[in-house]
Amino acid sequence: MSTAPLLEQLIEALRCLPGVGQKSAQRMAYQLLERDRDGGRRLGVALVAAVEGVGHCERCRDFSELPVCPVCASASRDTHLLCAVESPADRLAIEQATGYRGLYFVLQGRLSPLDGIGPAELGLDLLARRLAEGGVGELIIATNPTVEGEATAHYLAQLAREAGVRPSRLAHGLPLGGELEYIDRGTLAHAFGTRQEAGN
Amino acid sequence: MSTAPLLEQLIEALRCLPGVGQKSAQRMAYQLLERDRDGGRRLGVALVAAVEGVGHCERCRDFSELPVCPVCASASRDTHLLCAVESPADRLAIEQATGYRGLYFVLQGRLSPLDGIGPAELGLDLLARRLAEGGVGELIIATNPTVEGEATAHYLAQLAREAGVRPSRLAHGLPLGGELEYIDRGTLAHAFGTRQEAGN
Ligand SMILES: [Zn+2]
Ligand SMILES: [Zn+2]
Repeated sequence: MSTAPLLEQLIEALRCLPGVGQKSAQRMAYQLLERDRDGGRRLGVALVAAVEGVGHCERCRDFSELPVCPVCASASRDTHLLCAVESPADRLAIEQATGYRGLYFVLQGRLSPLDGIGPAELGLDLLARRLAEGGVGELIIATNPTVEGEATAHYLAQLAREAGVRPSRLAHGLPLGGELEYIDRGTLAHAFGTRQEAGN
Repeated sequence: MSTAPLLEQLIEALRCLPGVGQKSAQRMAYQLLERDRDGGRRLGVALVAAVEGVGHCERCRDFSELPVCPVCASASRDTHLLCAVESPADRLAIEQATGYRGLYFVLQGRLSPLDGIGPAELGLDLLARRLAEGGVGELIIATNPTVEGEATAHYLAQLAREAGVRPSRLAHGLPLGGELEYIDRGTLAHAFGTRQEAGN
């Protein structure tokens, strides 16, 4: 092999990105070195800084570089409303599509026993304590409309009822099997606005 | 906006990668932070190291972290043969597909007057001096079978003849308009093996 080791290392390292195989990694490396070294350096610095500086908010589990994220720390949010989502991307989608001014709880996943993801992995002990504190009146369950998302929603609804908190679900109208993150804003805003009390 | 600034910086920085828009950048950032921080850190370090450490070989213009790359520095290559390619990826494709043991010259582009890419940008002064040195007997022109690649090949053939060097082209059989880098190894090896003297 004659390719420079640093270049090989870069190509190999680029493959940690989702959807990037050997051929795309090679193209990315060549393109950065050939046409955008500033961009490559900026990305390298940003990666190290984010990996080392971004943790999880201790209230909502969203990504945050502070112990408590800006949303949880905000004095202008409605603390009676808590919205549970599977991922930071879903939280962002709701924040951008709706006028929601309550707080969030980011599960960072969904119940998936076969993958070893149970209540502990989703921080549901933290959520249970939060609901037991008494300040939350409604838990808006905004998991994805998939089989695992529905099972997670069912579990969350029970958790809410046990704490005397009213659980609600986004209105149906979301396409079954779809990814919430990719739904257009109008549909998402409508489903969010017409959310209904969660059934058993 | 509530997303952590370091995270926003990372998402923005990821967009320097070819083919990566806002949505994919976001997914990449979330996935790295959620599931592969080691990979993210390794990529960050590799990017900075490559951007700062990888330059161009002063003989062949391929990427190299040494002044002269391992291929040019090798004592076991046939210095009578020089193969001109458009890109490092093309060089690698030929190296992997064929039994070629000569040397390379990497143009890092193709003649494209409208984009301001002329002989100087492709290092053709360096190539002309190399051919004038007298050690090269055959210049194998392996530019892409595109309009600009053909124009570049024509120019290179003249350059070779002026230096008394025999120019040759990869045999046709390459699909017209295709990208050499993506051609299957068998076709590429065959076309390389049956290369013919370059016409006017
Ligand atoms: Zn938070
Ligand atoms: Zn070289």
